[in-house]
Amino acid sequence: MTKSTELATIAGGGLLDRRVFLKKGITFSVAALASESLLAEADDSRLPWMEKPGEPFSNYGQPSAHERKTIRWTMGNSMANGNGVSWTPLHDMEGTITPNGLHFERHHNGVPQIDPAKHQLLIHGAVNKPLIFNMNDLLRYPMSSKLCFIECGGNSNAGWRDKPIQTAAGYVHGMSSCSEWTGIPLKILLDEAKVKGRAKWIIAEGADASAMNVSIPLEKALDDCILAIYQNGERIRPENGYPLRLVAPGWEGVLNVKWLRRLHLSNKPTMSRNETSKYTELLPSGKARQFTFIMEAKSLITHPSFGQQLNESGYYQISGLAWSGRGKIVRVEVSADGGKTWAEAELQTPVLAKCFTRFRIPWHWNGGKAVLKSRAIDETGYVQPERSELIAQRGKHGYFHYNAIVSWQISRQGEISHVYA
Amino acid sequence: MTKSTELATIAGGGLLDRRVFLKKGITFSVAALASESLLAEADDSRLPWMEKPGEPFSNYGQPSAHERKTIRWTMGNSMANGNGVSWTPLHDMEGTITPNGLHFERHHNGVPQIDPAKHQLLIHGAVNKPLIFNMNDLLRYPMSSKLCFIECGGNSNAGWRDKPIQTAAGYVHGMSSCSEWTGIPLKILLDEAKVKGRAKWIIAEGADASAMNVSIPLEKALDDCILAIYQNGERIRPENGYPLRLVAPGWEGVLNVKWLRRLHLSNKPTMSRNETSKYTELLPSGKARQFTFIMEAKSLITHPSFGQQLNESGYYQISGLAWSGRGKIVRVEVSADGGKTWAEAELQTPVLAKCFTRFRIPWHWNGGKAVLKSRAIDETGYVQPERSELIAQRGKHGYFHYNAIVSWQISRQGEISHVYA
Repeated sequence: MTKSTELATIAGGGLLDRRVFLKKGITFSVAALASESLLAEADDSRLPWMEKPGEPFSNYGQPSAHERKTIRWTMGNSMANGNGVSWTPLHDMEGTITPNGLHFERHHNGVPQIDPAKHQLLIHGAVNKPLIFNMNDLLRYPMSSKLCFIECGGNSNAGWRDKPIQTAAGYVHGMSSCSEWTGIPLKILLDEAKVKGRAKWIIAEGADASAMNVSIPLEKALDDCILAIYQNGERIRPENGYPLRLVAPGWEGVLNVKWLRRLHLSNKPTMSRNETSKYTELLPSGKARQFTFIMEAKSLITHPSFGQQLNESGYYQISGLAWSGRGKIVRVEVSADGGKTWAEAELQTPVLAKCFTRFRIPWHWNGGKAVLKSRAIDETGYVQPERSELIAQRGKHGYFHYNAIVSWQISRQGEISHVYA
Repeated sequence: MTKSTELATIAGGGLLDRRVFLKKGITFSVAALASESLLAEADDSRLPWMEKPGEPFSNYGQPSAHERKTIRWTMGNSMANGNGVSWTPLHDMEGTITPNGLHFERHHNGVPQIDPAKHQLLIHGAVNKPLIFNMNDLLRYPMSSKLCFIECGGNSNAGWRDKPIQTAAGYVHGMSSCSEWTGIPLKILLDEAKVKGRAKWIIAEGADASAMNVSIPLEKALDDCILAIYQNGERIRPENGYPLRLVAPGWEGVLNVKWLRRLHLSNKPTMSRNETSKYTELLPSGKARQFTFIMEAKSLITHPSFGQQLNESGYYQISGLAWSGRGKIVRVEVSADGGKTWAEAELQTPVLAKCFTRFRIPWHWNGGKAVLKSRAIDETGYVQPERSELIAQRGKHGYFHYNAIVSWQISRQGEISHVYA
């Protein structure tokens, strides 16, 4: 094993320059050195799957039977049928794309099984030319694509608890997923409907049994909203809004209305359940925050993280995700000494606005106790807050928009737990 | 319907400036104008899926039952068990990402069902330190991600036929797919194995029953090859190489060895079946092209394309994919008059090297006969050739590396056929 001292550390706890793995010949030495006898054995070993032809071709592939643990973790509300969430297993994943089968879910009344031949979109209210579209009409319109995250406003809300929850990273912070969404820029359809001057809001409604609805400022709709028909190349899946979803990049998930059936232009918001009793937050002052649309910058170390195990001291790559609803992530800093010192991680390119950004930094673990943290900085200069700062601003009884720094503690045994540090 | 003459066309056959849809208020008028009675009806219509709670949450999602036609089309070789291909349905897709279940397949002896706990990677031959890795060892190493296409060297080979094949675009050209691959830069492992100076080639071998093997120049391995473990965020699926695949961005698919079990360093190529009798091409001169690694620039209009139907004259968006194994696509030109005049399409951003690039351009179809073509230009200045040029260079009896311009003919009835034009 190469000694840590051979490489200049750039921050406490063994953090190394982000380019060191490719520039210097670090030896991991986790592989077996292949002796003549081991080589001969590997060469001769006829594994069962090399002894007969494999499985046939398939029309639509599925994950390996050995990866059945990589699933969305679901939690239903027993008080309300079809109301609940499922989390993306971010701790089992790498890169930035979420495959469609693992995109998080938040449903208010289950997943409607919509026949696209019978689905309609209505644009009405404060417009000069109310319009009704069927899916074939919509498929005729020009499309554009956007790689972006969608995050539930209630993601990470276990962070408000008094004690740190001991759960896998994705099952706390995985109500955030990232896809390439393709569909019709909403501006094109609104132009066609000739929006009246007094219209300031759009009330979007889904075709689920709860007819879930929320209000969206017209300005956002005209800026970068998409009526998405495709997700990661294929038609959107039922639980993600098939056949039509409103995508509002960087804004809280509830605004990204699934199974979209209606856009009602209005001079005021509708004050529906999901923008009054829910998706609002009581502040320490007693006032409530409402229409807190934008998801602020956030980051999360996924490797190593809770439930994983370091088996020996030595070199590791710390890897995680950062994102901001305000634009691009410009920097992610990582600490291996509980926040005393910080080092800049490498960002996977291309870095895109309102999109998952993978960060990675090399680390030499000396086998002692360590606390890992990451903090994201976005292009507006916003810095992801420590938990204490967030609570000072927002109080202890928050529920939505929790985006504080996450801390993982490594024990001398290499076990990883969640701490408030 | 807005008259075509209100908008300046920028090339023959009704091609419009690529920004026109967002800048001018083009009216598609394919939506129904919502009368009071239609509005009332849409408002009152209680669709079956709005009358009761929907389906429950799922651990792993699947496409809608209404999208069962969007599948890989498979073709086996009846002479050799497990030998064949499947195509990505590019004509049913949008954006640039291929979801994992639809990534094309090319197997030589079926899909091995590998237990990752028993899988090993061997690096040996001309190295000072031969190494054996298991999957847990490999998961410890630093990773990086690359969004890139993989294309079979035999993709589009129906283009060599004397008559244009009448088949959906993806089922001719869809042995090309695009994913975010994440894994270990091969350079890191080769550095650890201490490659000897005389080594010039790596012979890569898969753990399928045919032990498929090919030779790759060491220079490419040290440049941008990745030992991929994840595809689009999740572990690679069996048919794409689970648990380990060599990804050689921009180079022909056969070099992207699936189920990778061995890298043998050598001073010469191995001259295996897949680099002598296959994946070589006889030229008109009688000489053979061999080791034609790089996939040259190519493009394909997917909408509209064979099998689709234009129901009326008016505005359409022409959309398709372009890619080049040499780097970035810098321009895609589209013709609506069989190649007499060309206009520049808009490229979906970010444009990435060796990656699918979606292009789109607005078009006003006047209802007459038209021939649509697209041609890609990459950052080396290479221009995708017309079919006649390709045949002049390579002869009429080619099989691999067909990348000529594809022409779709629109009839007055709006039917679309494949033509050599």
